[in-house]
Amino acid sequence: MPQSPIRKLVPFAEAAKNKGITVYHLNIGQPDIETPKPVLDAVRNSHFKVLEYSHSAGNESYRKKLVAYYDRVNIHLTTEEIIVTTGASEAILFGFLSCFDSGDEIIIPEPFYANYHAFAVATGIKVVPVTSGIETGFALPPIEEIEKKITPRTKAILICNPNNPTGYVYTESEMQQLREVILKYDLYLFSDEAYREFCYEGKHFSAMYLKGVEDNVILIDSISKRYSACGGRIGAFITKNKTVLDTIMKFAQARLSPPGFAQIAGEAAAELPESYFDITKAEYKKRRNLIVKRLNEMNGVECANPSGAFYVMAKLPIDDCDIFCKWLLKDFNYNGQTVMLAPATGFYETKGLGKQEVRLAYVLNCDAINAAMDCLDKALEEYPGRV
Amino acid sequence: MPQSPIRKLVPFAEAAKNKGITVYHLNIGQPDIETPKPVLDAVRNSHFKVLEYSHSAGNESYRKKLVAYYDRVNIHLTTEEIIVTTGASEAILFGFLSCFDSGDEIIIPEPFYANYHAFAVATGIKVVPVTSGIETGFALPPIEEIEKKITPRTKAILICNPNNPTGYVYTESEMQQLREVILKYDLYLFSDEAYREFCYEGKHFSAMYLKGVEDNVILIDSISKRYSACGGRIGAFITKNKTVLDTIMKFAQARLSPPGFAQIAGEAAAELPESYFDITKAEYKKRRNLIVKRLNEMNGVECANPSGAFYVMAKLPIDDCDIFCKWLLKDFNYNGQTVMLAPATGFYETKGLGKQEVRLAYVLNCDAINAAMDCLDKALEEYPGRV
Repeated sequence: MPQSPIRKLVPFAEAAKNKGITVYHLNIGQPDIETPKPVLDAVRNSHFKVLEYSHSAGNESYRKKLVAYYDRVNIHLTTEEIIVTTGASEAILFGFLSCFDSGDEIIIPEPFYANYHAFAVATGIKVVPVTSGIETGFALPPIEEIEKKITPRTKAILICNPNNPTGYVYTESEMQQLREVILKYDLYLFSDEAYREFCYEGKHFSAMYLKGVEDNVILIDSISKRYSACGGRIGAFITKNKTVLDTIMKFAQARLSPPGFAQIAGEAAAELPESYFDITKAEYKKRRNLIVKRLNEMNGVECANPSGAFYVMAKLPIDDCDIFCKWLLKDFNYNGQTVMLAPATGFYETKGLGKQEVRLAYVLNCDAINAAMDCLDKALEEYPGRV
Repeated sequence: MPQSPIRKLVPFAEAAKNKGITVYHLNIGQPDIETPKPVLDAVRNSHFKVLEYSHSAGNESYRKKLVAYYDRVNIHLTTEEIIVTTGASEAILFGFLSCFDSGDEIIIPEPFYANYHAFAVATGIKVVPVTSGIETGFALPPIEEIEKKITPRTKAILICNPNNPTGYVYTESEMQQLREVILKYDLYLFSDEAYREFCYEGKHFSAMYLKGVEDNVILIDSISKRYSACGGRIGAFITKNKTVLDTIMKFAQARLSPPGFAQIAGEAAAELPESYFDITKAEYKKRRNLIVKRLNEMNGVECANPSGAFYVMAKLPIDDCDIFCKWLLKDFNYNGQTVMLAPATGFYETKGLGKQEVRLAYVLNCDAINAAMDCLDKALEEYPGRV
């Protein structure tokens, strides 16, 4: 089991804080946005007397609200097609356990969310990366490149859309290309859409919109980012494929039920008006515009303009992002402040890639982002490994 | 992946209820005991504004309270030796993923909690059962029988103490015998102690009390039964073994954090006075005395007197418990009422065992238990497969 590439820097951040240094956390997707009050209030005003197991697939009342939520984003489901999970993490784990045998292969465009690799290791499946690059803004690699990687052991393609760590939003045309491939080779398409609402240019095209491949598509979802409710640990495994649902339910039953309190929160969240996203999206868009502008103003920094999620990948004039990110915490401060970033090497399966890249999560307000960018700008001037 | 042996009867229970029949649920360990008010109030009176990820090992404030709780039961730990998990289920899953390679073997006295089997299947490890019998009250099988099952692939022994499904509480002498074996063969001892407080005669002897095997012992724990907080999904993985802790932490980090709200509940629960258990224990003891008396009064029924947890295994004068339990729901009612039981076959790894046994969970109040026993008594008279 590999160690989390981001979490291994945590002791250095703690040491910096113990020295009195302010650390701006752009390293993880923990937003500072307040969890909507009605969502927290639903739990705080609850009246039950016994904190019982819920249904293993999640409370039916919650799944009904989810059906209505998905209807609003043009994904049409029944309550039986939704299995509520303990975060998207558990949905991925159950999906890997259910759809693969040990040694099977999953194709994932890299850079990708590091924990996909962790769950693949835990379940004995092999990740086959297809590289996307900063020069295309991390668009889907040419479909021929993906097709070339298909072997008799390939069972699935996984995408995260909008993408963590790149912020890229897959176009309808890219999604249709993926549809052709999964149809031709009868593969599963795992689509992690935890950031669905956070698209700043144009509309999101869900994998659930693809026609004629309904039994191939698996939707991984989560309320963590959507409603700034990361600590609730509520996600969902969604598919139209009855056989897969039956298998997932066995895993769901073995772990009894998803968290109880947070399902109440999730139920209230599913009822929030659209205007909630308007406000949150406007805030994130403002932050994205700021961080991208600040990054591009720095000497030698290259940065795509991501149109979704709340991440941006930047290429820095440095020798090695792992060394640089550690140096930021251990050996650098600017007026008693520094910034914590995620080294991009942890998001690439191919060894040696991403050495000059970092991921920045714009989860802090604009003042904090400005202060963090001041630190980064200064740090790049001072860093001994600048190239 | 096997289907849960208990859950597969659920559709028949639902059909019975739709016909207007009252179903007494003695089939699952979902107590009717109210969750302590201070535990629920801690969540309801919380004031945070962002439902953030907690530490992957659980909030430090909660782990500190757990250290104090364990001190009171003479288990002495540091916060670093406790990893808060999403129920005991996740602790078992992480333990199996961390301590075994695919194909390794774990010895478990049978009958045992069915989900151990499910997690073993999910992680590719082989369960080797050693049979305990109703004639000894499901005491630990002779240690020579356990030793005989050890092969080069054996990595661990797992016990549940007090035991689900048998209610048996392992004696200090049995625990010391286990100590000798794990020491001699350098095995892990997984000890699931979710029912620790529910011992009705004598004291609980924790696996953590064993001397000189500190690196071998793994404690699996949960607040679900202890505080009637099953839906919270808060458990713990506990060991003194630093290497195992390091590996478990990687899995813990991959799934980010345990549920947030329920950690607040757990923190309040860890502070409850001892008197909470006095009251709860007295209630369960009363129920146990009643159900055991009622069972033993039935013609042809054999029943041990379990000294812990809230389960009892009974041998019934029937041909097949799976058929009988389904018949109870499908074809029987007594004044519009029936009872749902867990067929014991699901708790035995050895095929063919447990066919005349059922598990009854005394999680309902004495009136409900009496009504359920009236149903069972009548059902045993009427059942066509009576032997």
